[in-house]
Amino acid sequence: MIQSINHIGIAVRNIEESKELYRKIFNVEHFHEEIVEEQKVIVASFKVGDVMMELTAPTDEQSPIANFLAKRGEGIHHIAFATDSIHSDLGTLEERGIQLIHKVPTHGAHDMLIGFLHPKSTGGVLMELCQHNSELIRE
Amino acid sequence: MIQSINHIGIAVRNIEESKELYRKIFNVEHFHEEIVEEQKVIVASFKVGDVMMELTAPTDEQSPIANFLAKRGEGIHHIAFATDSIHSDLGTLEERGIQLIHKVPTHGAHDMLIGFLHPKSTGGVLMELCQHNSELIRE
Repeated sequence: MIQSINHIGIAVRNIEESKELYRKIFNVEHFHEEIVEEQKVIVASFKVGDVMMELTAPTDEQSPIANFLAKRGEGIHHIAFATDSIHSDLGTLEERGIQLIHKVPTHGAHDMLIGFLHPKSTGGVLMELCQHNSELIRE
Repeated sequence: MIQSINHIGIAVRNIEESKELYRKIFNVEHFHEEIVEEQKVIVASFKVGDVMMELTAPTDEQSPIANFLAKRGEGIHHIAFATDSIHSDLGTLEERGIQLIHKVPTHGAHDMLIGFLHPKSTGGVLMELCQHNSELIRE
């Protein structure tokens, strides 16, 4: 079941310049940074209350984020919702007619399993479900 | 000071169809609906954890949301951050070189004072600061 918003993904061109900008706006430092090989991105995470703002820059021209930047420019890329049952939630959403990008969860930042829903069936909003690997119970 | 994410504003064409879609995805009903005359919009709010998802449809062709829909289509419109000091925060951000859309806060949904930052100076993300009128202390 979807329980909360885990993070908002922001597409940026230059991770260092964007970190500087977010420090200026939110008066906080990023608390985490990692390269996610599977998505070909570098992610820097800031915490605002209980939600993370994840600045995401491509590490390769083949990255989905490079594609997004070329089409739309910098800006909000997706919203990620924390769930306690990612496998069954993806199944339920598909049954309800929501188109999935990942029918089977894949690996994201922060040691999480993630699955994206297609924005064509979610009113133009790219939505992600995510669940910490450590919280995963065989469903 | 910015304390948390209050809501994510989603631009939609048809409030009834979008409410139905969000019920299907999140398994919850919207808990609030109102027309905001100043912005010429109707807003339906869903709660996901502590954050609101605010579906926002234009009530008039002159609405800023109608303009956004014409240019970008349906999707994420803005992120709103709750602050306990909206007047001084807007002043501080302007001093730091962030361009403001509202130098003086205006009225938003949920009896809040709101002020938008210009996406040109926030990496393409339309950001809003907001503060409940009831929590407002003369700064």
